[in-house]
Amino acid sequence: MKVYTLGGYEEVGMNMTAVEVDGEVVIFDMGYNMENVISSEGQVDEMTTNQSLEIGAVPEDEPVLDKNVVGIVIGHGHLDHVGAIPKLAGSHDCPIYCTNYTAEIVERTIEDDRKNLSNQIIRLEKGEEMNVSGNFNLEFAHVNHSIPDSTLSLLDTPEGYVVYGNDMKIDQSPVIEETTDVERLKEVGEEGVKCMIPGTTRVDDQGRARSEESVKVEINDVLESCYDAGGAVFFSTFSSQIGRLNSLIEANDDRRKIAFVGRSLKEYVESAEKLGLINTDQIEVVSYYDECEELMDKVDGERENWLVVATGNQGEPGAQLDKMASGTYPFDFEKGDHMIFSSNVIPTPENKANRHKLENKLEDDGVRIYPGIHTTGHAHKEDHRDFIKFLQPEHIVPSHGTIQKLGSYVDLAREEGYSLGEDVHLSENGKCLNLDE
Amino acid sequence: MKVYTLGGYEEVGMNMTAVEVDGEVVIFDMGYNMENVISSEGQVDEMTTNQSLEIGAVPEDEPVLDKNVVGIVIGHGHLDHVGAIPKLAGSHDCPIYCTNYTAEIVERTIEDDRKNLSNQIIRLEKGEEMNVSGNFNLEFAHVNHSIPDSTLSLLDTPEGYVVYGNDMKIDQSPVIEETTDVERLKEVGEEGVKCMIPGTTRVDDQGRARSEESVKVEINDVLESCYDAGGAVFFSTFSSQIGRLNSLIEANDDRRKIAFVGRSLKEYVESAEKLGLINTDQIEVVSYYDECEELMDKVDGERENWLVVATGNQGEPGAQLDKMASGTYPFDFEKGDHMIFSSNVIPTPENKANRHKLENKLEDDGVRIYPGIHTTGHAHKEDHRDFIKFLQPEHIVPSHGTIQKLGSYVDLAREEGYSLGEDVHLSENGKCLNLDE
Amino acid sequence: MKVYTLGGYEEVGMNMTAVEVDGEVVIFDMGYNMENVISSEGQVDEMTTNQSLEIGAVPEDEPVLDKNVVGIVIGHGHLDHVGAIPKLAGSHDCPIYCTNYTAEIVERTIEDDRKNLSNQIIRLEKGEEMNVSGNFNLEFAHVNHSIPDSTLSLLDTPEGYVVYGNDMKIDQSPVIEETTDVERLKEVGEEGVKCMIPGTTRVDDQGRARSEESVKVEINDVLESCYDAGGAVFFSTFSSQIGRLNSLIEANDDRRKIAFVGRSLKEYVESAEKLGLINTDQIEVVSYYDECEELMDKVDGERENWLVVATGNQGEPGAQLDKMASGTYPFDFEKGDHMIFSSNVIPTPENKANRHKLENKLEDDGVRIYPGIHTTGHAHKEDHRDFIKFLQPEHIVPSHGTIQKLGSYVDLAREEGYSLGEDVHLSENGKCLNLDE
Amino acid sequence: MKVYTLGGYEEVGMNMTAVEVDGEVVIFDMGYNMENVISSEGQVDEMTTNQSLEIGAVPEDEPVLDKNVVGIVIGHGHLDHVGAIPKLAGSHDCPIYCTNYTAEIVERTIEDDRKNLSNQIIRLEKGEEMNVSGNFNLEFAHVNHSIPDSTLSLLDTPEGYVVYGNDMKIDQSPVIEETTDVERLKEVGEEGVKCMIPGTTRVDDQGRARSEESVKVEINDVLESCYDAGGAVFFSTFSSQIGRLNSLIEANDDRRKIAFVGRSLKEYVESAEKLGLINTDQIEVVSYYDECEELMDKVDGERENWLVVATGNQGEPGAQLDKMASGTYPFDFEKGDHMIFSSNVIPTPENKANRHKLENKLEDDGVRIYPGIHTTGHAHKEDHRDFIKFLQPEHIVPSHGTIQKLGSYVDLAREEGYSLGEDVHLSENGKCLNLDE
Repeated sequence: MKVYTLGGYEEVGMNMTAVEVDGEVVIFDMGYNMENVISSEGQVDEMTTNQSLEIGAVPEDEPVLDKNVVGIVIGHGHLDHVGAIPKLAGSHDCPIYCTNYTAEIVERTIEDDRKNLSNQIIRLEKGEEMNVSGNFNLEFAHVNHSIPDSTLSLLDTPEGYVVYGNDMKIDQSPVIEETTDVERLKEVGEEGVKCMIPGTTRVDDQGRARSEESVKVEINDVLESCYDAGGAVFFSTFSSQIGRLNSLIEANDDRRKIAFVGRSLKEYVESAEKLGLINTDQIEVVSYYDECEELMDKVDGERENWLVVATGNQGEPGAQLDKMASGTYPFDFEKGDHMIFSSNVIPTPENKANRHKLENKLEDDGVRIYPGIHTTGHAHKEDHRDFIKFLQPEHIVPSHGTIQKLGSYVDLAREEGYSLGEDVHLSENGKCLNLDE
Repeated sequence: MKVYTLGGYEEVGMNMTAVEVDGEVVIFDMGYNMENVISSEGQVDEMTTNQSLEIGAVPEDEPVLDKNVVGIVIGHGHLDHVGAIPKLAGSHDCPIYCTNYTAEIVERTIEDDRKNLSNQIIRLEKGEEMNVSGNFNLEFAHVNHSIPDSTLSLLDTPEGYVVYGNDMKIDQSPVIEETTDVERLKEVGEEGVKCMIPGTTRVDDQGRARSEESVKVEINDVLESCYDAGGAVFFSTFSSQIGRLNSLIEANDDRRKIAFVGRSLKEYVESAEKLGLINTDQIEVVSYYDECEELMDKVDGERENWLVVATGNQGEPGAQLDKMASGTYPFDFEKGDHMIFSSNVIPTPENKANRHKLENKLEDDGVRIYPGIHTTGHAHKEDHRDFIKFLQPEHIVPSHGTIQKLGSYVDLAREEGYSLGEDVHLSENGKCLNLDE
Repeated sequence: MKVYTLGGYEEVGMNMTAVEVDGEVVIFDMGYNMENVISSEGQVDEMTTNQSLEIGAVPEDEPVLDKNVVGIVIGHGHLDHVGAIPKLAGSHDCPIYCTNYTAEIVERTIEDDRKNLSNQIIRLEKGEEMNVSGNFNLEFAHVNHSIPDSTLSLLDTPEGYVVYGNDMKIDQSPVIEETTDVERLKEVGEEGVKCMIPGTTRVDDQGRARSEESVKVEINDVLESCYDAGGAVFFSTFSSQIGRLNSLIEANDDRRKIAFVGRSLKEYVESAEKLGLINTDQIEVVSYYDECEELMDKVDGERENWLVVATGNQGEPGAQLDKMASGTYPFDFEKGDHMIFSSNVIPTPENKANRHKLENKLEDDGVRIYPGIHTTGHAHKEDHRDFIKFLQPEHIVPSHGTIQKLGSYVDLAREEGYSLGEDVHLSENGKCLNLDE
Repeated sequence: MKVYTLGGYEEVGMNMTAVEVDGEVVIFDMGYNMENVISSEGQVDEMTTNQSLEIGAVPEDEPVLDKNVVGIVIGHGHLDHVGAIPKLAGSHDCPIYCTNYTAEIVERTIEDDRKNLSNQIIRLEKGEEMNVSGNFNLEFAHVNHSIPDSTLSLLDTPEGYVVYGNDMKIDQSPVIEETTDVERLKEVGEEGVKCMIPGTTRVDDQGRARSEESVKVEINDVLESCYDAGGAVFFSTFSSQIGRLNSLIEANDDRRKIAFVGRSLKEYVESAEKLGLINTDQIEVVSYYDECEELMDKVDGERENWLVVATGNQGEPGAQLDKMASGTYPFDFEKGDHMIFSSNVIPTPENKANRHKLENKLEDDGVRIYPGIHTTGHAHKEDHRDFIKFLQPEHIVPSHGTIQKLGSYVDLAREEGYSLGEDVHLSENGKCLNLDE
């Protein structure tokens, strides 16, 4: 078995890995690199494949270009896993496999790019088994992350299972979904896993990732105190956090009118509603400028009646929160209004500066700020240890991180008896590991 | 009205403040300074009053020594609020007022010191009003903190209320108690507060302190995963965290036998049991060496059956966790055992080194560590803002912190319209503020 | 004596303090608040006085507007000390006193603002005594800072000296100037100082500020290694660091051609040259676009021959370094070029993001980066302690910082026997301290 | 060529690497792991080889035990490079090669351990070439570090040079020695380097390590200000920092009497004096309790006359500074005494706690503290890049660090065109790399 480590082995973002057995290749994920897109100040939608390769926005797929690729498997719908599909999938005459919610996002991403890809998009239920080719059967196992329908991709090969899943955690108290399907993972572990390809984002964090239910309690608490105090209440989370939005709706308990403001929020929520994951009947979902303007005018007039969910929790210039704080709309923040950030600040200097600027503006207006009502979607150290214990993989190829993060995973694997270069491997973008040597 | 800022105005710990109206004085709290006790490597129990004054272990009470002190009011039972009573209370011919749980601790503290104080200890229910002297009526209002029976002390004086409470928060979802008595505080605010004396420990933290219920969810989650994985499970929190212990007992749900190991744990729990705050019928509570040895021998033999709660979460040398990790007992940690730290590391270099050493020992044995399953008992910035809004005090004297922390509170007070030196005051130990100037 | 603490008592920047004795007032410094200017995204040059007051760009001088102001004393030429002169000096019918280099900057600042101020600018030599009014004599004492001609302002009053100097250090090995005039300070201390008004920027830093000579050695070392390696060499420091520029010129020792690129660099250097503080005969000093373009074209063609000093070490968008790295000029950085940052990053989130972006661009081009070849111009804790010892002031009013920094200075003053509210005072903007109470 | 990565590939400390060509093996360094020694609370001198292996104090040398080892090459005299010699060298019937100062330390280390090793210790001058076996010629090239006589070991093999040197920097302005022998390194690079084995301690630090000359200026400055202020002056650095001690002696310029206090200081200085690297004729060098007591008594009586250099800059309990601050001797620190730390705090929690305790004691006595008058002995990123450029190695095996640090070096090597697993290798303790695959 060969493992092509194409993207996400020197950075966070731009995930892409391929596995080859007997001349057949399956590609896992085709993500883009948000940071390189931003720093090039370009719109990835407007770039050609070659342009996006050049600025490092998408993984260099040259090592598998002439291979017999029989399937593209997408584990979940975040852009660092699906964003490069419009640029790279067209080179391969094969279907794209994913779960329902992921499929919605993949289709939208392709459409936004105005690409007419010929790849068939095949939707699998979790637990359903699908024959991909002579060598490969595919199944998606349910895992917790921070977007609906996240999966571990289980690829059954003649040499044993490949388990790919570089964003995942084990949530003992999730909302709107079940806990990671531990039983299935243990079964697969018993049957024999040739190779596991885990992410490493939070492997340096001790203990376990906190549950969504625990965050839900926090949302209840903070909303209670905001409503007691009066004033307009604003809330912002990552747009794909459909579970979080449900927790908020429940916490509101019909006490205030709710608005969802912003394009990405609208898109992720609409996809979720289609699949019955959220109900927005009582919610005003707005995105175009005129809609937003009208809504904010209403909020300004009856601020005690509104709970406004808006995009822009990182302080991104031009996102809805930035617009609202900058006087774009006929709305002014007032002393005693509330801003709940149900997110972390993704720790780049750019985000920190943007968020700092946003908070400064809000504070100048007397807005009360509640940051960090949030939990990560990424396994901490002990979650990762569990995945190793459940799956007992013969080989591990840590992914989705800088070499330092991949190294931290190696430290963990060593604690579980693995040895660098023998059964836990450190690779880099563009390399191929031959696991049979 | 004069406010004597006697202790806790240049450090965390050693709280003591006195208020004088018309020649009558009430003292709030008599705490000791843990850090100075530790760094002097002495036992404060074994020191005379003068010795403990000299090393800075207790506040210098000289400014009120010859005053007409009519009452000593203790807000809650932590040592930085009660620890100096055996050294300082005897100088004043007046009662000590406190709630029930606090009274238990005050009595034990006096006994441990082998002092025979003549001060009467008067127990008040929360909400009960008590005449202290010609000038003063006293009432304790319920607040959330991290020990049972915590209060804001409401002193009704001819010039308006004095509200003293330097450890407190507002917990919208507490366990084994109610939320801070906001209604009563608002009433008092309406009646007129001359002076509020708040603590400042976490005024630099944005938003609100997280609730105990949210931590309870975390405890459930982590216990679930530990029990799934097998192995012995250890848990450590601050010994006065009776609510936290109840959350743990509930999370265990009779699945494993529980042991409480350590002297301070035993003492705080026994006091709580007396007042019906915890039920230890099914729990082995041990403290003497022989008891501990016997218990740990049992745990060693049937590790999958035990949930052991032990003292020493800061890694203190000689505390139970350190003993267990060092081979003091016929017990050895094994790969796959679990250590849950339901606490933060109080950030002194000494604690960090101790805890680091303890974690290293545990990790060398393959113990899985879950740190930080915890929330603070101290108001964050927005909780503090609420207390100002509820009480609308004429003057504020921030306390319980270094000058930098007191300064951060001044920043907050400025946001609410106060002005330094006019109605929000920065003081230091041993000073007297005259609020009528 | 009354001390009006008008600006710089709640922030870094916007320094302004006034002293009143017997109805006569002297104002020290009129600075602006860089951060508020930036966050308002405005040009302070283009604002009226009222506009700049409204956004908090200049200190509110209302408390002294109707007073009998007999002199405005400027200690050194940085913008947080002189920037508000065009907005505020015109209200007072009195001269502005300063040393030569400071005068150059004051005059340029007024001119840039297109204001026709009627205040006479009176230049004093250090050590020269000047009668300001019936009550006041003024003398400037030499101190080390990070711009030429920095001073402590010694104001001789009927109640004793006022010593104002909120940016200063003691450099045992300065370049192009002498060590702080310790002998004179001791004399003044002997004569009697009623009040000292020190800055606090680095009072939390232990020990002493490092000397310019020590940095000069570093510049020699790094230049040596750059020249050994070949490639173009770029250098950036704060434009008023004339001493640093001299160290660089000396280190270059005529080995490469030197260019100074950027408007602020040109202005500060021209003023310095006028006073004989630097010699640019052999240096190309350019500032207009065409000049810069032509120069950078030359550098591109013979990169091994050039040492280019450019503005923009904080990564400010639009500054010269940003332009050079962004392809504005007919010049491209190449692998093996060198970028020496002879500065620190002033730690705001905005600066960190800008600098990060600049460094990323340079690193993408293969430029080797040498950051932090720098020392501060601000007294560390032990320098501050020396100023107290030399001057033995009756009162201290710490300035130029947030309340936390002012508080840290209070901690230091306490170590030297001062007591908060008695002889060391914490004030806020707009307040007046009456030192005779 | 095979490279056995025996120690220092998962930690700082315990360096040991072996190279095999045609059945002949050379071992580089035999160091011990200070942290494991400390945490085991044992004395490595008192342990057998097996005991020290068991606690991880020395590298597991099993992979080379039965090999034909023809030489043991020691690059410099620090304990993480020589400390394991008494435990491990005896297994091999071959000489130990090193420079003079290193030899002094090796001999003392063996003696302290009371071992009678039969290995011959062969002293080489830098630049001298020595035939080690049929395959190998050895030469030591001069490099800067933080102990005299540091070297890069150049092993000439039939397959090209092996260049081993895991502690090194390039100091453009060293004291008591020359700059790293760049010319010889470039020559060797031209002749052909098969493999370079660099350390990685400070590869994450941008730019270049600062020079000793720059520190010397700082020592001059701080001593000047201490002498101006009066009081006793204490100084502490790492005992092997002979250059630093010379800078101090020069800065003192016979103004005060100097004492060197402490065993390790005495030993390193005596070895240096033997080789003419320092002159202690005018210095009192004391180590036994009685000597120290007598000296400190003298210092106490005439504190303005003394400059005392003492061991214990990390705050190690029981070291001389700790003793002095704890009242062990007839000496008390007084307000206005000075403590100069010419070192960094090696950032372990234990060191931080010890040092914090020491500083607290000193501050309680009013001692003025000057920390961090120091530079590192380890190459920063740009120094490392130079070594790559000079030597142009075919393969690089980064060493002396955790996997994260080794990974950071890989990042640097990638910038210079190397590729992970091809010509830059990540290994772990006990592994063997075959460079010919």
